[in-house]
Amino acid sequence: MDVKDYIRTIPDFPQKGVMFRDVTTVLQDARGLELAVDSLAGLLDGVEFDVLVGIESRGFLFGTPIAYKLKKPFVPVRKKGKLPFDTVEQEYSLEYGSAVIEMHADAIKPGQRAVIIDDLIATGGTVRAAAKLIERLGGSVAKAIFLIELPALAGRENLSEYAVDSVVQFDGE
Amino acid sequence: MDVKDYIRTIPDFPQKGVMFRDVTTVLQDARGLELAVDSLAGLLDGVEFDVLVGIESRGFLFGTPIAYKLKKPFVPVRKKGKLPFDTVEQEYSLEYGSAVIEMHADAIKPGQRAVIIDDLIATGGTVRAAAKLIERLGGSVAKAIFLIELPALAGRENLSEYAVDSVVQFDGE
Repeated sequence: MDVKDYIRTIPDFPQKGVMFRDVTTVLQDARGLELAVDSLAGLLDGVEFDVLVGIESRGFLFGTPIAYKLKKPFVPVRKKGKLPFDTVEQEYSLEYGSAVIEMHADAIKPGQRAVIIDDLIATGGTVRAAAKLIERLGGSVAKAIFLIELPALAGRENLSEYAVDSVVQFDGE
Repeated sequence: MDVKDYIRTIPDFPQKGVMFRDVTTVLQDARGLELAVDSLAGLLDGVEFDVLVGIESRGFLFGTPIAYKLKKPFVPVRKKGKLPFDTVEQEYSLEYGSAVIEMHADAIKPGQRAVIIDDLIATGGTVRAAAKLIERLGGSVAKAIFLIELPALAGRENLSEYAVDSVVQFDGE
């Protein structure tokens, strides 16, 4: 089995017409979890970076094991109001309305090269907001990696100034 | 430095009078992250179990690296409405009002021994709710482990029917 075989597709969640890619079935199998983490870490072979930045909350699930494996620091990006120390924040657009994410103001030091990680890239809006937070703190984005990519939503094209890669792609099947 | 030295204390977050124990400073240091994960995993030496259950969302941060290290499956417990498949749910009391957590109905198989993990144990209310979900699916709780324990809030006593352990204790300093 490869990683894709462990992903469960749930039609019409969270709303009608959406094919939701469920990673809990990857995690709840020891071999699936190991494969996913090792495959994501493999996307960083030869990439020089200082810190891994994970996006709440499924990005946390894959971010810390990779940080542990590669002996790198991990920085969480969270929804507004969750982080207890001084933060920088960034608004981004959703299909309807907008949302705000935050990062601790001391999380990235000037000159640090960050890798952004999340479970899935769709249009890339949240990733761009996370990249802006990193850049605002004086860091740079070495790469952005995802377990799952939905190429039809053009996240990779929307983030063309960054190096983007994924383990598994779903083309609307 | 030991793990406790990496934890940052933020007075009056999220409300006046609370000394918030911030684990982001543990995670954003590669050595702190490694120490925390290895210390938590050390609490499982000699414990026979089948699956690690992490509570959203800081329990995710420590749960998956331990699952990866020990080659165990990982199951997330989430706030209501976040999990896409069939779920079981459990209400629990908060200081004001109540909340509901959920677990996928196929996440625990009958007879499985689960370890519950979260970043912090206060009164233990969320942990008891997670334990009930595990038991309702036919599993049992082998142990509950936490990076941080606040002994003044008596979580360990409140959960006296379970094996509870923590890496670091804060006695109101």
